[in-house]
Amino acid sequence: MKVQDKLLGYQCISCEIEYPIIPFRYICDCGENLDVIYNYPRIARHFFKTDLLSSKDRSVWRYLPLLPVKYSPEHTDIQVGGTPLIESKSLADSIGLQHLFLKDDTRNVSGSLKDRASEIGIQHASEQGQHILVAASTGNAAASLSSLAAYHRKQAIIFAPASAPPAKLTQILQYGATLVPVNSHYDDAFRLSFEFSQKHNLYSRNTGINPVLSEGKKTVAFEIVEQLNWLIPDVIFVPTGDGCIIGGVYKGFYDLIQLGWIDKMPRLVAVQSEGSPAIMNAIQNDAPIHGVDSSTIADSISVNYPRDGLKAIRAITDSGGFCITVTDDEILSAQLELSSTTGIFAEPASAASVAGCKKAVESDMIRQNDSVVLLITGTGLKDIPSAQKKIQLPTPVDANLDDVESFLKSRISGFSTS
Amino acid sequence: MKVQDKLLGYQCISCEIEYPIIPFRYICDCGENLDVIYNYPRIARHFFKTDLLSSKDRSVWRYLPLLPVKYSPEHTDIQVGGTPLIESKSLADSIGLQHLFLKDDTRNVSGSLKDRASEIGIQHASEQGQHILVAASTGNAAASLSSLAAYHRKQAIIFAPASAPPAKLTQILQYGATLVPVNSHYDDAFRLSFEFSQKHNLYSRNTGINPVLSEGKKTVAFEIVEQLNWLIPDVIFVPTGDGCIIGGVYKGFYDLIQLGWIDKMPRLVAVQSEGSPAIMNAIQNDAPIHGVDSSTIADSISVNYPRDGLKAIRAITDSGGFCITVTDDEILSAQLELSSTTGIFAEPASAASVAGCKKAVESDMIRQNDSVVLLITGTGLKDIPSAQKKIQLPTPVDANLDDVESFLKSRISGFSTS
Repeated sequence: MKVQDKLLGYQCISCEIEYPIIPFRYICDCGENLDVIYNYPRIARHFFKTDLLSSKDRSVWRYLPLLPVKYSPEHTDIQVGGTPLIESKSLADSIGLQHLFLKDDTRNVSGSLKDRASEIGIQHASEQGQHILVAASTGNAAASLSSLAAYHRKQAIIFAPASAPPAKLTQILQYGATLVPVNSHYDDAFRLSFEFSQKHNLYSRNTGINPVLSEGKKTVAFEIVEQLNWLIPDVIFVPTGDGCIIGGVYKGFYDLIQLGWIDKMPRLVAVQSEGSPAIMNAIQNDAPIHGVDSSTIADSISVNYPRDGLKAIRAITDSGGFCITVTDDEILSAQLELSSTTGIFAEPASAASVAGCKKAVESDMIRQNDSVVLLITGTGLKDIPSAQKKIQLPTPVDANLDDVESFLKSRISGFSTS
Repeated sequence: MKVQDKLLGYQCISCEIEYPIIPFRYICDCGENLDVIYNYPRIARHFFKTDLLSSKDRSVWRYLPLLPVKYSPEHTDIQVGGTPLIESKSLADSIGLQHLFLKDDTRNVSGSLKDRASEIGIQHASEQGQHILVAASTGNAAASLSSLAAYHRKQAIIFAPASAPPAKLTQILQYGATLVPVNSHYDDAFRLSFEFSQKHNLYSRNTGINPVLSEGKKTVAFEIVEQLNWLIPDVIFVPTGDGCIIGGVYKGFYDLIQLGWIDKMPRLVAVQSEGSPAIMNAIQNDAPIHGVDSSTIADSISVNYPRDGLKAIRAITDSGGFCITVTDDEILSAQLELSSTTGIFAEPASAASVAGCKKAVESDMIRQNDSVVLLITGTGLKDIPSAQKKIQLPTPVDANLDDVESFLKSRISGFSTS
């Protein structure tokens, strides 16, 4: 199917003005973000559930008819997406649920869900003849763009505050990206990245500006539905900072409803950190989004002003979901509980899904027999120091069997030391 | 197929004595390691290539008829194995090859190929009624056993030198395993782990003792063959420390040859660090394996005495392969080249594959038109400090567009600053 057949254009999510092609500044003249809009009746005539059943492609490119680009990239064997959906009885028991699933997006090439957005963004750029992509980030988005730009032989320029942790800046350079360390805070890095990309007509992979990125993230919703054999979960918990991921998840389910492939939307729950609650505040006060002074250990959802906040609020409201906040301490406890019950070591922001779900069950915001999916959006391996806060190394034992036995006696059941 | 139908027993790779069931000490009375031996004619009557083609299971469990256990575990949705095989034209060009593939085992749940061994080992233990698994390790094996034991609701006990890097000990505890930090060196930790597991009849997940672990690792060979549509690569480069991985790769191809599904073995190349060359020494001198004082940045292949050395030497010799050593500096350069050409951030030991391949091409040990697979056995995210050794952070720029332009002018081609 040709892109002009499936794509109707771009529509402002606030004033609803439509643009036939993506505007130069990516956003609406009114300043709000855009939605990619599709010609669903036409797509439904060319794309069928059975196409998915017979597809050998396990990556996001199996959904090409629902993506805003003409072609799959030349090479897709790095496999972005196609991550496991894991049912955990242990964690379900501990939380007090009957059916709990974890969508493990730590398994993407750069270790986070952001790879879905970078993959589609790079192809979108490429089809516009743009081979240099620019972003401001120190976190998962930077690593993701750098990694996939290397794979697709594109150039990535990453703007970051010079004060960012050296380990994070290392990862960007490790992938061969060009790093611009800016002697200022994140907002300046963001502004400069956008000014620079506009001036030189380079592609902006900045969340909340570029509507194509949500389109990549929505593939996680498609996969969840396929992996549950087209049963729709009752509730999905999504770690939420700028709002782009939950906006993408909403869009994925919205697409499938428009195609008539599913008939309901799961309740989408935004989990925010108490230290970064801009969307929570807006929903609680039924007021416009105001910036906050964000401070939380969950760096991937630490956001002063959520640039995709409107999409997040729409996702929550239209799906009958809600927003919930969790403390850093709850996040770190949930991180430990997640790894020790399921084997998945997730970053603090992802553990927020777990913490938010626990809290929602405790306060009867969801039911025990609801089927629940938690999005695990990024690996904990990028941030060992946070995990260490809840870990106490035991006192060492001397190198003889007697000492080992008394050390283990109190710790392990199931063997006798007689 | 019942396990007694497919499995003939365990055979010493040195004195060739056979054992009908796995001996209590896991190894032969002569002190050498065992091979799992199969009844290939019987397997060939029940298991066909077409079974693989129609299998929906993407994990190692698609190969159950060739694994030394009765059943798949109750839950397999965490998906061990099924990792991408990625062709890289960029890296091939840079090395001077025509066809180069990367088997990206960083994508396993705990970030390394070791998950294949842990997965089969845990099921093997379980079928023997053992639910506590013991290992000595500070690296990938420890994280892998801890992670998958959590998933399968088993208990893992990890012995490690108390002096191991706190970040590595953290990961073990993060997964809820019981850590025994021993006030001594690795060899004592290993000895105690084995004595303790023997005394209490606990399962030993120690490489080079337990022959079942190679059987898990061999699944990487099966996947490579399937992903290449049953074309056999000419050469496979394998980072080699204790020799268990290359032994497993050999066994995988050996199985397929015995079944008549393929007709040749690829040349298997063991890549060792110059600072940990026990297997290289034995091959060069055509002598028994002697321990070395190992010292290399590539911790996952840093081994004093390779406990699966004989299997490694057999794999190299029988496949017409060879052993090659690389320096730490070559490893770190290769690590950077790998990530910046392919988007895969691998640990130093995995980058040794890349460095070894470059060296083999330069010295005409393999041909330019050989099809080559490099095993990428573990993620670089567990060891950021090593990567930082080759990375220089650029001097920051001030937060204005002019300074950004002059910073980028020399670094980026493809835009004008006029």
